Amino acid sequence: MTQSLIWSPISGGITAPSGFQAAGVIAGLKESKKADLSLLVAPDDAICAGTFTTSVIRAACVDLCVDRLQVTSGRIRAVVTNSGQANACTGDRGLVDSLLITQAVAERLGVSQDQVLICSTGVIGVPIAMDPLLAAVDPLVNALAPDGGAAAAQAILTTDLVEKQIALEAVLAGRRVRIGGMAKGSGMIHPNMATMLGYLTCDASIPCDLWQDMVRRAVDRSFNSITVDGDTSTNDTFLAFAAGDPLPTDQLEALEDGLTLVAQHLARSIARDGEGATCLMEVQVEGTDLETEARQVARTICGSSLVKTAVHGRDPNWGRIVAAAGRAGVAFSADSVALWIGPHQLMSAGQPLPFDRVAASAYLSERACGGYLVDDTVRIRLSLGDGAGLAISWGCDLSDQYVRINADYTT
Amino acid sequence: MTQSLIWSPISGGITAPSGFQAAGVIAGLKESKKADLSLLVAPDDAICAGTFTTSVIRAACVDLCVDRLQVTSGRIRAVVTNSGQANACTGDRGLVDSLLITQAVAERLGVSQDQVLICSTGVIGVPIAMDPLLAAVDPLVNALAPDGGAAAAQAILTTDLVEKQIALEAVLAGRRVRIGGMAKGSGMIHPNMATMLGYLTCDASIPCDLWQDMVRRAVDRSFNSITVDGDTSTNDTFLAFAAGDPLPTDQLEALEDGLTLVAQHLARSIARDGEGATCLMEVQVEGTDLETEARQVARTICGSSLVKTAVHGRDPNWGRIVAAAGRAGVAFSADSVALWIGPHQLMSAGQPLPFDRVAASAYLSERACGGYLVDDTVRIRLSLGDGAGLAISWGCDLSDQYVRINADYTT
Repeated sequence: MTQSLIWSPISGGITAPSGFQAAGVIAGLKESKKADLSLLVAPDDAICAGTFTTSVIRAACVDLCVDRLQVTSGRIRAVVTNSGQANACTGDRGLVDSLLITQAVAERLGVSQDQVLICSTGVIGVPIAMDPLLAAVDPLVNALAPDGGAAAAQAILTTDLVEKQIALEAVLAGRRVRIGGMAKGSGMIHPNMATMLGYLTCDASIPCDLWQDMVRRAVDRSFNSITVDGDTSTNDTFLAFAAGDPLPTDQLEALEDGLTLVAQHLARSIARDGEGATCLMEVQVEGTDLETEARQVARTICGSSLVKTAVHGRDPNWGRIVAAAGRAGVAFSADSVALWIGPHQLMSAGQPLPFDRVAASAYLSERACGGYLVDDTVRIRLSLGDGAGLAISWGCDLSDQYVRINADYTT
Repeated sequence: MTQSLIWSPISGGITAPSGFQAAGVIAGLKESKKADLSLLVAPDDAICAGTFTTSVIRAACVDLCVDRLQVTSGRIRAVVTNSGQANACTGDRGLVDSLLITQAVAERLGVSQDQVLICSTGVIGVPIAMDPLLAAVDPLVNALAPDGGAAAAQAILTTDLVEKQIALEAVLAGRRVRIGGMAKGSGMIHPNMATMLGYLTCDASIPCDLWQDMVRRAVDRSFNSITVDGDTSTNDTFLAFAAGDPLPTDQLEALEDGLTLVAQHLARSIARDGEGATCLMEVQVEGTDLETEARQVARTICGSSLVKTAVHGRDPNWGRIVAAAGRAGVAFSADSVALWIGPHQLMSAGQPLPFDRVAASAYLSERACGGYLVDDTVRIRLSLGDGAGLAISWGCDLSDQYVRINADYTT
């Protein structure tokens, strides 16, 4: 991944790549009266690839996205996102409302209705407040701007504490290429998909099938590698647009690195903003035969309530980590296990090592969210053998605050 | 299950069946200085069947149990249980210590070492305090009594708030048959196995292979149908003894009903005593093709952090229940979903129904642990179609208290 060194952060978020416009407005869908309606518009040569929730129960907007990506062969021009009501489990009107909204946006943009997608996020079972939304389509389209990324990133949030956006730039084959992204999500976060909502733009193009494969791999190494609470949402959607001059084939690997970096940054931001989180957990598992096996173990550790509460208590309770690995459904030899928490090695060849418990607790205590000067990431590394499989998964600790947020939400 | 009406509760717990003896003593293994060492002794004609954790990482005592059940063809005479140290991930000495303890018990009982099993529960990675344990073997054996069930049920506990025991009696083919049971567990509880430790005795015998099948089915419908926190332990063990005169074949169905009732009572007791729990959750899923599919969905709902926190907040947030069902990995038609919380129907044919939210919240609020006069069980019923598959899963709500218990445990 040395290629990743060529990518540098720039400002602009989702609209940093040239040709993309975005907007975010207050439509009055949320009680908080914060921005709740956003629009992303892609150039007319854009292609779009998407990945979606694997839940049997999915919102009408997800069905609509899947259908329209197929019908248009990925020739999508815009995606509108409403925040406040998930429009899942709302019966027949779920689809009707989604159609009405995308129709209104398509008419105002002068594009085909099939080229407009919709994502919804918020409370399940509650239909969208249609009157305020439809009344806001005009101001929404009027607000479209080439620097509208930040406004859009704000308008897609629900219980998130911070907006999540990033843009990277590199020079590939002599020209500037930019990748931008934004995401939302902090609860009901678990692979697959873990987003809940993520968007990516790129101002270089590659053939649609290659783009789809590249997006799928990047999502596996990012959004599908995080967990907050093990609950896959009904609305999870990731949409990635590419538009502009085609890149030569020898630059595709570099492009995929940038794509993966943007997706991983957004995914980590979601985990870090996990409801009630006080730190980010990064679990690296190595030594399995396959990358998928390493990911399965890493995800299981990240999702373990007992590991998450131990990390919350800043307790180097390594037995819980090994116990979680053992139940992950991946075969390995217990005699090959080695474990580190930060710089502290706690196990080798399956045997516990004497370690400085005070120093290990201090390592955990020093990791905390809240400030650029603080390292907020608790790093756990587990080796299970000699295989080449390696994967990283991200999560967060489980706090009393998580319980309060979710016990008190709704009603 | 009309057969189950023939079984009546009696006192005596694990030693209610004739011929069994038990004891529980204070060996000094736990800082709390509560009873921490127990022994169950079966008659010399007993057979034993066991089910164990499915984790790759399992304690040496589990390996020992599995080996000895095989070597003796189930002719087990005793099981010793130490509470305080799980003796998992303790390296080579894990097995050595388990061998030494069972050897000491076997010598005092005058039985073969292969006929003695050991179960350990407590903190992972901590070896057993051998000196106090070996010194306590004499008083432990001296304390054996035909009414020692209550003492044994106390001595196997760790973070449990209450002991878990039961005994049932029925007249089968003209003779009294008794089944007794005890269990412990309130954290790191998830199928398979969910016990962590469970023991059952029966004073009627049936052929060993039939007994094993019967035990496996009863465990699937009880311990493998509960979850507290999704974490399968390294030490989970369920051991079921049968001894005495053989039962005629036409009584086997009635016997299995009793076995299942005892196992379900113990399993529900574990879920109800889940760390920080304020109520028991009972989720019935029906209408799938297979019982295993119904169980998979019911377990997923019981394990959902979002459902568990909603129940803790006494919030009829039905969207989370349906969302959890959707990600359970079982295919069903979203148009067939019907849902009830207690007597309140919230969905029909996949469409949300208008319902009395205040009454539904009141139903939830009225369910709370703590007293025989209170109904502590929140009942959720989900129908997914017309199939004959039906299963019930038990769990508990997720409270701030769960986080505090597990963030503060150890160190």
